[in-house]
Amino acid sequence: MFRADIITLFPELFPGPLGASIIGRAMEKGTWTLKAHQLRDYAFDKHKKVDDTPAGGGPGLVLKPDILARAIDDISPSDDPRPRLLMSPRGKPLTQDYVRELSVGPGAVIVCGRFEGVDQRVIDKRNLIEVSVGDYVLCGGEVAAMTLLEATTRLLPGVMGSNESEMDESFENGLLEYPQYTRPATFEGEPIPPVVTSGDHKKLGRWRQEQSEKLTKERRPDLWAKFEGEK
Amino acid sequence: MFRADIITLFPELFPGPLGASIIGRAMEKGTWTLKAHQLRDYAFDKHKKVDDTPAGGGPGLVLKPDILARAIDDISPSDDPRPRLLMSPRGKPLTQDYVRELSVGPGAVIVCGRFEGVDQRVIDKRNLIEVSVGDYVLCGGEVAAMTLLEATTRLLPGVMGSNESEMDESFENGLLEYPQYTRPATFEGEPIPPVVTSGDHKKLGRWRQEQSEKLTKERRPDLWAKFEGEK
Repeated sequence: MFRADIITLFPELFPGPLGASIIGRAMEKGTWTLKAHQLRDYAFDKHKKVDDTPAGGGPGLVLKPDILARAIDDISPSDDPRPRLLMSPRGKPLTQDYVRELSVGPGAVIVCGRFEGVDQRVIDKRNLIEVSVGDYVLCGGEVAAMTLLEATTRLLPGVMGSNESEMDESFENGLLEYPQYTRPATFEGEPIPPVVTSGDHKKLGRWRQEQSEKLTKERRPDLWAKFEGEK
Repeated sequence: MFRADIITLFPELFPGPLGASIIGRAMEKGTWTLKAHQLRDYAFDKHKKVDDTPAGGGPGLVLKPDILARAIDDISPSDDPRPRLLMSPRGKPLTQDYVRELSVGPGAVIVCGRFEGVDQRVIDKRNLIEVSVGDYVLCGGEVAAMTLLEATTRLLPGVMGSNESEMDESFENGLLEYPQYTRPATFEGEPIPPVVTSGDHKKLGRWRQEQSEKLTKERRPDLWAKFEGEK
């Protein structure tokens, strides 16, 4: 069973979107579990203070190492085999490969910052792996944690029907997906391209491959270069 | 006022995390609005069918162009100045630059797919801009839309205090952020690095810059190459 624990100042945001659709049903069936923990519950003072001003000055507030360590040690003792992740724009970029790696593991403990940075000493001493969902700045790690967990849990055994799971392959071949069409046959005067409805599967396969390559070249020269390199 | 409209099969997931924290307060103050629309409400039949099998075969289901066009035309008539976005792994990668561009505009109309692809003809005819939050596959566009809107709305005027807003700059200078520290002075035997608490601001500034450069070189050679190129 894949077990996810979240450390956050906003536990009430979970499960949120993670409770919907196939991954929500999988949670109900016990394929995976999710528990969101309030970091403030681990504060030492009655004001539940969890952050403080940055040493050396600078804007924002920084999560205190002692309180976060206390939360981590309670939720994920040292023999916990799960990786401890910190959602952060400084982190390694989340990729489908990493998602797949996580999905065959025992779960994840995920720390969500909020505005603040996190004291570097607790990152080092608790081996937090910094993971970034993209090159943009969010208010906090909560939506990033949802992103990571949605991508990961959909790959757990039995979550997707065999029908959906095949879809991945088109993404994981290193190219963007070819255009899709469905009924009606003509939409606002435009028919589905004849090759798609021709019934000639070989020709259609070639067309889809060409479309995928064209789209990838145009939109994602970085993916295209990688694809060309691996051929 | 920044106006966001979402077209989704799961309108009940909104505002979710977008109702929390500074962006939630900004929504209450009227700095921005969010409306989530149920795509099924635009279906033509009593079964509220919104998708159909892919033309030419293949796994999954594809959102029908006629129903989606009907929803878009109702929610965003042709004189609507807002960009129409489709959250999709095929899209252009979301960046802080694009987030900033959106944040100075009138808002966004965001289409969320769910498993399915979307018929290419409605993408073309309604000028949907495909945007990707990262190189991984989600169950649908909902969490991606939350990501985009969280990143965008935090930049709206008055949402962040002057204190937080400065934080962006360290991300937007093209480098990853330097390590942060806060109280206690010693955590599990490890002091805050003396340069951070030295009071020598010039030396600290140099150290932070060095740390940022080192981290970026190690973790994100792609960003580092870009940073070097722009110098």
